[in-house]
Amino acid sequence: MTLSVKSEDSGVNMQLLKDRILKDGQVIGTGVVKVDSFLNHQIDVALIWEIGREFARRFHGLPVNKILTIEASGIAVACATAMHMGNLPVVFAKKAAPSTMIDGYFAAECTSFTKRTVSTVTVSQKYLTEADNLLIIDDFLAHGEAALALANLAKQAGATVSGIGAVIEKAFQGGSDKLRQEGYRVESLAVITSIQDDHITFR
Amino acid sequence: MTLSVKSEDSGVNMQLLKDRILKDGQVIGTGVVKVDSFLNHQIDVALIWEIGREFARRFHGLPVNKILTIEASGIAVACATAMHMGNLPVVFAKKAAPSTMIDGYFAAECTSFTKRTVSTVTVSQKYLTEADNLLIIDDFLAHGEAALALANLAKQAGATVSGIGAVIEKAFQGGSDKLRQEGYRVESLAVITSIQDDHITFR
Repeated sequence: MTLSVKSEDSGVNMQLLKDRILKDGQVIGTGVVKVDSFLNHQIDVALIWEIGREFARRFHGLPVNKILTIEASGIAVACATAMHMGNLPVVFAKKAAPSTMIDGYFAAECTSFTKRTVSTVTVSQKYLTEADNLLIIDDFLAHGEAALALANLAKQAGATVSGIGAVIEKAFQGGSDKLRQEGYRVESLAVITSIQDDHITFR
Repeated sequence: MTLSVKSEDSGVNMQLLKDRILKDGQVIGTGVVKVDSFLNHQIDVALIWEIGREFARRFHGLPVNKILTIEASGIAVACATAMHMGNLPVVFAKKAAPSTMIDGYFAAECTSFTKRTVSTVTVSQKYLTEADNLLIIDDFLAHGEAALALANLAKQAGATVSGIGAVIEKAFQGGSDKLRQEGYRVESLAVITSIQDDHITFR
């Protein structure tokens, strides 16, 4: 659980992830790559641990006190990152307000292009305040809708967002451009520039 | 990430968890204790890490090759347990079949007494097979419906279930009795025997 930062680690870690996407990712059509064998259905915890280490390295030195993510696939990556950043608390936004969430909560709309649905994501007002300086972590960054919804929740709480980290970015869907235009610092560990004819191209 | 097993750790770890439930758990009515400040909305990763260590200690020596859990609150605990058991893969069952789950999947019904709903939980057939020897891990064990649904998925796959672990058991709701009657080994880290008048009693 000790974080050792070596600058040369970065390339190695990202290569590990890209190799894994090429080896086990399943291309569907021209816009989707399914990585549910190691990231969002079955989880390779050793890989997730290295991903957490890499996020901690990239966001090192920022005054972050909390990690914000969204259920379900973001949780493992957010927890690994939190452990590498000195055991920060992780808050995961919920995709619906559960019946036991009796106190007030912040809510934001989130469009899923993959599932063609609009859902409401919520966080209890107890766990996001204006004293919070957040790092937003998620598995995928595509159109940026989930990250924008999380940033919206942070804004409602008056919290600061110091950075947004995604494991896999599909750059051709414009999410990171949108987030950077709004002033957010975005770090993606594997940036895919195109998915076509069963072929994945990284930046 | 090295697992050091000390028999005297057990009591300490469980006391840590029980103290936390008493300190931060919020009693609602006579059957519900909300622990969303450290377990299932905001996550204390240092505590989750110790919980994972304790599950690894309790299930040490079993021929487990995979951890099965259910989104969303089970994921962090399952990952910590998996890391303490030599980086086993974690598979989390989904509460709905996503549109990108194009291959076959196993499905089981699951009643939530808290939310008063019946949902379908699914796992891709790629990630559960008859070669698998599973440890089922979840945050809560109440009426046992989630654990039974996961065991049902395992049964459909022809997989073996070597054990079922829950962070918090509400013994008065009968889930562990039901699971043990069906022949499963159950380990719960904090067993609550009653919740009444804002008072939590542990076994």
